[in-house]
Amino acid sequence: MSQQAGQTSRTVLGVDPGLTRCGIGVVKGSAGAQLKLVDVGVIQTSPQLPLEQRLLELEAELIIWFDKHHPDVIAVERVFSQHNVRTVMGTGQAAGIALLLAAKRGIPVVMHTPSEVKAAVTGNGRANKSQVAEMVIRILSLKEAPKPVDSTDALALAICNIWRGSAKSKIADALRAEKTRISKLVKR
Amino acid sequence: MSQQAGQTSRTVLGVDPGLTRCGIGVVKGSAGAQLKLVDVGVIQTSPQLPLEQRLLELEAELIIWFDKHHPDVIAVERVFSQHNVRTVMGTGQAAGIALLLAAKRGIPVVMHTPSEVKAAVTGNGRANKSQVAEMVIRILSLKEAPKPVDSTDALALAICNIWRGSAKSKIADALRAEKTRISKLVKR
Repeated sequence: MSQQAGQTSRTVLGVDPGLTRCGIGVVKGSAGAQLKLVDVGVIQTSPQLPLEQRLLELEAELIIWFDKHHPDVIAVERVFSQHNVRTVMGTGQAAGIALLLAAKRGIPVVMHTPSEVKAAVTGNGRANKSQVAEMVIRILSLKEAPKPVDSTDALALAICNIWRGSAKSKIADALRAEKTRISKLVKR
Repeated sequence: MSQQAGQTSRTVLGVDPGLTRCGIGVVKGSAGAQLKLVDVGVIQTSPQLPLEQRLLELEAELIIWFDKHHPDVIAVERVFSQHNVRTVMGTGQAAGIALLLAAKRGIPVVMHTPSEVKAAVTGNGRANKSQVAEMVIRILSLKEAPKPVDSTDALALAICNIWRGSAKSKIADALRAEKTRISKLVKR
């Protein structure tokens, strides 16, 4: 971790879980400073393979991403409702693999709902895909849309985590400072 | 594996996936012979824990079950539709952990739909919970309902797998024998 604009810079690996396509976006920075796109991609597993082999492949690919970037936090999309229940199962299985892997390595996991991500990135919890993509391009100062396009949500997740996480840790820092101040007063 | 009534006896570990309660039922036998209840139980993880810690606990408990019984096959319930999408996510995550663990150990995994299990055990794909439980008791020659009750579905899964899997492997055996016969004829 390095210091930027007085805040701790973190590397966040966002996971937009899926069995056929699992979006990955790695962003580095802190709430006050310019965020940097570190890496972006999609893990694909073949629908022709048995389910358990697909999960094994997904885990192997996730390990490569984790080892390459040593993320400080894993941000995973929390899915609440979806029309296709078959997709939900695949999403749940893929998310489960990512969460388990993070837990095994002691990397903190934070889950964000899609509307939380949209609100953080665009200011509107009901923003559409292209509005989110436009803001991701602007926030990361990219020249064009990240490729593949369906990795945009993973980048938005990572951005949301850096901004929100920082707000949460600011409050935690403030509370800690206040506690220390009071305990010092009491000791006097 | 031992031989019973001319067929290979297998140990099947059935998993009724869930995050709060994950049913486990271990059954040994072959299609032609009396099936034997080996072990039954439920893995529970606390809803108070962070999701990734629950998945880690579930995996640790599943490893204990796998190590204790060395199953030849893992039978997992395939969930297609459910009313509560939040439960579906937990079910998917739990199923994903079980599938990944089986794949890592090279244990074959078979998924069965609830109606397939009901049809195999009761003869009726729309049987209710108590009808399934009654047949599980009868098939395994139990004196009373298995405890805890919500492990019954995991036992039904294992029974279904032994009966169905055996039918499938009989066909596979017949096809293999026919292939060998033809290749011998061709070589003459």
